[in-house]
Amino acid sequence: MIEYNDASPEVRAVYDDIMATRKIDWINNFWKALAHDPKTLRRTWESIKEIMGPGELDTLTKELIYVAVSTTNQCGYCIASHTAGARKAGMTDAMFGELMAVVGMANETNRLASGYQVPIDDRFLAK
Amino acid sequence: MIEYNDASPEVRAVYDDIMATRKIDWINNFWKALAHDPKTLRRTWESIKEIMGPGELDTLTKELIYVAVSTTNQCGYCIASHTAGARKAGMTDAMFGELMAVVGMANETNRLASGYQVPIDDRFLAK
Amino acid sequence: MIEYNDASPEVRAVYDDIMATRKIDWINNFWKALAHDPKTLRRTWESIKEIMGPGELDTLTKELIYVAVSTTNQCGYCIASHTAGARKAGMTDAMFGELMAVVGMANETNRLASGYQVPIDDRFLAK
Amino acid sequence: MIEYNDASPEVRAVYDDIMATRKIDWINNFWKALAHDPKTLRRTWESIKEIMGPGELDTLTKELIYVAVSTTNQCGYCIASHTAGARKAGMTDAMFGELMAVVGMANETNRLASGYQVPIDDRFLAK
Amino acid sequence: MIEYNDASPEVRAVYDDIMATRKIDWINNFWKALAHDPKTLRRTWESIKEIMGPGELDTLTKELIYVAVSTTNQCGYCIASHTAGARKAGMTDAMFGELMAVVGMANETNRLASGYQVPIDDRFLAK
Amino acid sequence: MIEYNDASPEVRAVYDDIMATRKIDWINNFWKALAHDPKTLRRTWESIKEIMGPGELDTLTKELIYVAVSTTNQCGYCIASHTAGARKAGMTDAMFGELMAVVGMANETNRLASGYQVPIDDRFLAK
Repeated sequence: MIEYNDASPEVRAVYDDIMATRKIDWINNFWKALAHDPKTLRRTWESIKEIMGPGELDTLTKELIYVAVSTTNQCGYCIASHTAGARKAGMTDAMFGELMAVVGMANETNRLASGYQVPIDDRFLAK
Repeated sequence: MIEYNDASPEVRAVYDDIMATRKIDWINNFWKALAHDPKTLRRTWESIKEIMGPGELDTLTKELIYVAVSTTNQCGYCIASHTAGARKAGMTDAMFGELMAVVGMANETNRLASGYQVPIDDRFLAK
Repeated sequence: MIEYNDASPEVRAVYDDIMATRKIDWINNFWKALAHDPKTLRRTWESIKEIMGPGELDTLTKELIYVAVSTTNQCGYCIASHTAGARKAGMTDAMFGELMAVVGMANETNRLASGYQVPIDDRFLAK
Repeated sequence: MIEYNDASPEVRAVYDDIMATRKIDWINNFWKALAHDPKTLRRTWESIKEIMGPGELDTLTKELIYVAVSTTNQCGYCIASHTAGARKAGMTDAMFGELMAVVGMANETNRLASGYQVPIDDRFLAK
Repeated sequence: MIEYNDASPEVRAVYDDIMATRKIDWINNFWKALAHDPKTLRRTWESIKEIMGPGELDTLTKELIYVAVSTTNQCGYCIASHTAGARKAGMTDAMFGELMAVVGMANETNRLASGYQVPIDDRFLAK
Repeated sequence: MIEYNDASPEVRAVYDDIMATRKIDWINNFWKALAHDPKTLRRTWESIKEIMGPGELDTLTKELIYVAVSTTNQCGYCIASHTAGARKAGMTDAMFGELMAVVGMANETNRLASGYQVPIDDRFLAK
């Protein structure tokens, strides 16, 4: 983990932008680990910054999607950090419950579809 | 695939409820395959019906989450059917683009977090 | 795909053993593809032969487990070939239905457990 | 975690049914976490109860399948709880060893099949 | 799929850079699909360009790693395109055979490690 | 965990071969756990020994591939042990950074390819 005080100017610049963009005064461990590879730190942060800001989908919806993917992949760190992020963006307990219900069901029916070898309906084919 | 005309009364009752609930006049292949096991057909439909209706999260958001999980799991059938479902619920091309961007990024950072063996920050720990 | 008539003696010896062990007169595509790497062909066949024969678990149970894993991983080839294998070993339609129900449910609760960040009960800890 | 004494009547009713069905006097953490969303608690329990009871497949076989899926998905909680469940249903050390061998091999050949891009044999195609 | 002749100047600029960087005169379907979202097209290409060029690891090694991940995830498109990419970068049939053997084995032992609930050795702990 | 002093002659023979082959004087937990099933211990070790030795790909490249798969599967034990193995085989910090960047990107584009339902280009089709 590379702390702010031990960071190179290049890494500090990313840390500063993370804190300014998110209006927070601390850096979470994910970035402190990536800081061992400043190029990946910068590229990952710039991608996240471009993707996660509000656009056609609002920030809360994007955080819910992030939790859905992380839960499907069983990534402990990402579940913890993005569940916190979703709560900060407005996710209530009731929303979290519905999110988990959808994620669980999707993981179930994904396997029913493949195990039963269901062919794609013509109406669903990408054109 | 069990077509409506060949279905038992038990299976037809589920098919009828699917069409009435979704206000459509056809049944997609997923249900026609599950119909080989009427208990699983009924249980899966009742769960989907309970989960996917609007609640704290609206139907569009739930369909976006379904696509996110199916894409992460690489389930071809589910990607095709739920992308169609999301479009029907109002997903625009621009929303789809943002959905894919978030799903892609989450799958990337999930692996950066595990590969770098990042410990969960105290602030993110579930209480 | 390397057909029997085009195979080297080393590859033919494995093909012969597969057919003799399984009491069949043809080789499925999986082995014909692996035959491009005779060492992997031989090692994989010898492992499969050692593992899949009846032991403490019977052949049907082992084939059901194989289908469960292949369905979870969404491997189209493996789902098709091992579902055929399970049917040959005695799997009925009703057994297949229950297998799919368990596989679907396990994939669902796996995500509920991780998404809710459920800690392992002391009673379940490996000793 | 919602303990029995802090649970609403709706949640207690599910807890009571779990303990009566399984002939045990305690509730494991999975259900105590789900209890934050009583609808999902009830639906998940009713599905599990319907699926995991003996049918065409016996309880032990179903628990083995559950462990196979959980191991493939690397779900720590589920591996621990369903390995305990399988042992309670009669799984011996030798059976566990064979289960792991099959699960490992299936995960290996799933990737050999996809990496070699093996086409499905006509004989295996679902009809 | 957005063909070169139908592409906006923004998309064409990315297509031109892909062809110039890779010294080829055609665009593969992946980029033609992403072109529906020019921001994701540009960001993904710039990341790929930064990551996949020779650095501490040579291009062949990076393509082998790409095939390993794609095979593990069972992504048909990515297996096909990156196996072609690896061959172009110098992968021989014998190297491909060894790559598949390692990928298969890693997928097997990943599950043996989780199924047996193996604790991490102190010597392996990240410091 | 079965320690050397408590091991049967059959298990000790494998432990001895592991230590001799790897020129080390200790056994890591993975093998001590597998030792509960001597057949799987022996078969797994013999496969690993055959696969991981230098061939057309050198040992470092094979270890990098192992880490790539383990990271994609989120196997904590395997990430820790094979990252240590890769470092022993010569992986520098800079190589690790590039490895993670490729693994992350491949996991991202795998989902973009499936989510956009990209058809395989004719040029990439296996012949």
